[in-house]
Amino acid sequence: MFSERMKKLTPYIPGEQPQDRKYLKLNTNENPYPPSPWIKTFLKSFDIEKLRLYPDPLFQNLRAKIAQGCGVQSENVFISNGSDEALSFSFYAFFDSCQGELLFPEFTYSFYPVYCDFYGIKYEKIPLRDDFRIDIEAFLTKKDSCGIIFPNPNAPTGICLSIKSLIHLLDNYSQDRVIIIDEAYVDFGGESAVSLIDRYRNLLIIKTFSKSMSLAGLRLGFAIGSKELIQALFTVKDSFNSYPAGMLAQLIGAIAISDTAYYQSITEKIIQTRDYFYSELKRLGWNVLPSKANFIFAEKKGTPGEEIYLRLKARGILVRHFNVQGINNFVRITIGTKKEMDLFLDEVEKIF
Amino acid sequence: MFSERMKKLTPYIPGEQPQDRKYLKLNTNENPYPPSPWIKTFLKSFDIEKLRLYPDPLFQNLRAKIAQGCGVQSENVFISNGSDEALSFSFYAFFDSCQGELLFPEFTYSFYPVYCDFYGIKYEKIPLRDDFRIDIEAFLTKKDSCGIIFPNPNAPTGICLSIKSLIHLLDNYSQDRVIIIDEAYVDFGGESAVSLIDRYRNLLIIKTFSKSMSLAGLRLGFAIGSKELIQALFTVKDSFNSYPAGMLAQLIGAIAISDTAYYQSITEKIIQTRDYFYSELKRLGWNVLPSKANFIFAEKKGTPGEEIYLRLKARGILVRHFNVQGINNFVRITIGTKKEMDLFLDEVEKIF
Repeated sequence: MFSERMKKLTPYIPGEQPQDRKYLKLNTNENPYPPSPWIKTFLKSFDIEKLRLYPDPLFQNLRAKIAQGCGVQSENVFISNGSDEALSFSFYAFFDSCQGELLFPEFTYSFYPVYCDFYGIKYEKIPLRDDFRIDIEAFLTKKDSCGIIFPNPNAPTGICLSIKSLIHLLDNYSQDRVIIIDEAYVDFGGESAVSLIDRYRNLLIIKTFSKSMSLAGLRLGFAIGSKELIQALFTVKDSFNSYPAGMLAQLIGAIAISDTAYYQSITEKIIQTRDYFYSELKRLGWNVLPSKANFIFAEKKGTPGEEIYLRLKARGILVRHFNVQGINNFVRITIGTKKEMDLFLDEVEKIF
Repeated sequence: MFSERMKKLTPYIPGEQPQDRKYLKLNTNENPYPPSPWIKTFLKSFDIEKLRLYPDPLFQNLRAKIAQGCGVQSENVFISNGSDEALSFSFYAFFDSCQGELLFPEFTYSFYPVYCDFYGIKYEKIPLRDDFRIDIEAFLTKKDSCGIIFPNPNAPTGICLSIKSLIHLLDNYSQDRVIIIDEAYVDFGGESAVSLIDRYRNLLIIKTFSKSMSLAGLRLGFAIGSKELIQALFTVKDSFNSYPAGMLAQLIGAIAISDTAYYQSITEKIIQTRDYFYSELKRLGWNVLPSKANFIFAEKKGTPGEEIYLRLKARGILVRHFNVQGINNFVRITIGTKKEMDLFLDEVEKIF
């Protein structure tokens, strides 16, 4: 009854989302603060009769708001059902095995190889440098690749490349192959490459409302790039699902993106807590990678990552462990409130 | 910069969704009545802080509610971002060109050939009978097909097959190839085949919250079938987007599916209005197909469908015209309130 390609799939495994027991959830990089309070006001007075109509398949209002916020035009903006969907559509639209392999870092968002298998795209993983940084030069030495993708800051390391490094990559890579920079975490101290889309028509930036906008539950993401790239994403969308973003998601997204003051304040708090937590964890003898994201990637020398994960889980704290050779000893810890991170540090001192 | 497959796509074109001018919108089969009033109560008191967390990727609460409503188990239910996404995932999971061609009616939901092109599936269109009914016997004479899909009632005709006809098809088709029945419109007078999923492990039913549940703006659909088929859809979902249905969609869907009394009352009104409208249109000399859906497919002999569409649009009324040989003379008219249909009839009497 099943297609051959379906039988070969190995799905992505998202971080645990326990629906029953209450954990201190530091495993899926959710924001510890609520989203913009204006959303509450909006929902209270929302006329539910509007839901009987289909949402705008062109997302015009939300795209205009995002364009304004990012300093681009509406034609440079595509909306998706979470940034994962924008990624999925992009893999379909831009990467073809007949043109060679897609390149991404050895340790990165583990959905990338899943998309490749889903659409039949070959790929090659490029090792990180010894200090866990993405190795731009190694990407550039590969010939005949069909494109490049990585998050900046990278996940799960949290390490961020400078705009200068990105320009170096863009200047020296084929202008006829797409480079995707997944900026899910860029608001926590990285520098966005959005301003480069005018110079590089092959640059696509992927963004999400799930992290810095504290709206993981809403499912809303977007892509920013040249008009040509955005049109291609609309073609894919309209061949898959005409209405991927619902009316409430579009309206709530437009409210959130306009409330810059609120989001600056909570982002600032998360950055302060991360930097404090980074220092404290180092003080306790952990090896901690420098992070510009809302998480920390860290190892306690001599203790396998899985053991850390399991012992913390037994104490009611969820972190993320990747059972992958090379980062086996690490765990990824989401930055919560200062109080939550102090609780975490207390537990860590007790356990280890 | 683009993949070869993307360059070959011809996207689906949804009905117009004008965001500015106010039309009497009878073109995309939306429900004229608001959704369950309990949704308003829910939104008023919804704690927006919950939106900071990812939604349940297993949709457990909503699946349980739907299973209860449909008399199946949760393991028989899959949730999607509108029923179009469930359709798209199903095409990927169940239909492979190496097994032959997918069969669907010549005049039917025009997204089916788009999905085929998107995933590289060959297909064959089976002509309708002279009376525009789906020709079950013609499906059964085809050898080596990779599956069958059609809506019941069919769109855009509105004509419904009996359960007896469906059983005849299921009994005489390969048990190792999936048959999908798209029941988007079944609540308006058709008989659902959901009760057959225990007998036919190759039967998948697709449903939507967009029509009878009056929640087109929400984007929520579901599929019902054997545990094996549902597991396959989860595998595809988890290789595409772990969280296709947001938290608000899941919660609102669970409220709607539980408010059977309200939805029975509005569905009853739509059925009465449809039957009244059918008679009136016939009285005005139109040829009207018998409909069990919330729309009517009709022609005014001697007047091309496109002319009807354009003249109505000029008068502020939107209907749907398909510029396709064989149904060129028809327009599809959504059933609104009785007042709206009387307005439509008045205009038609004036114009034609």
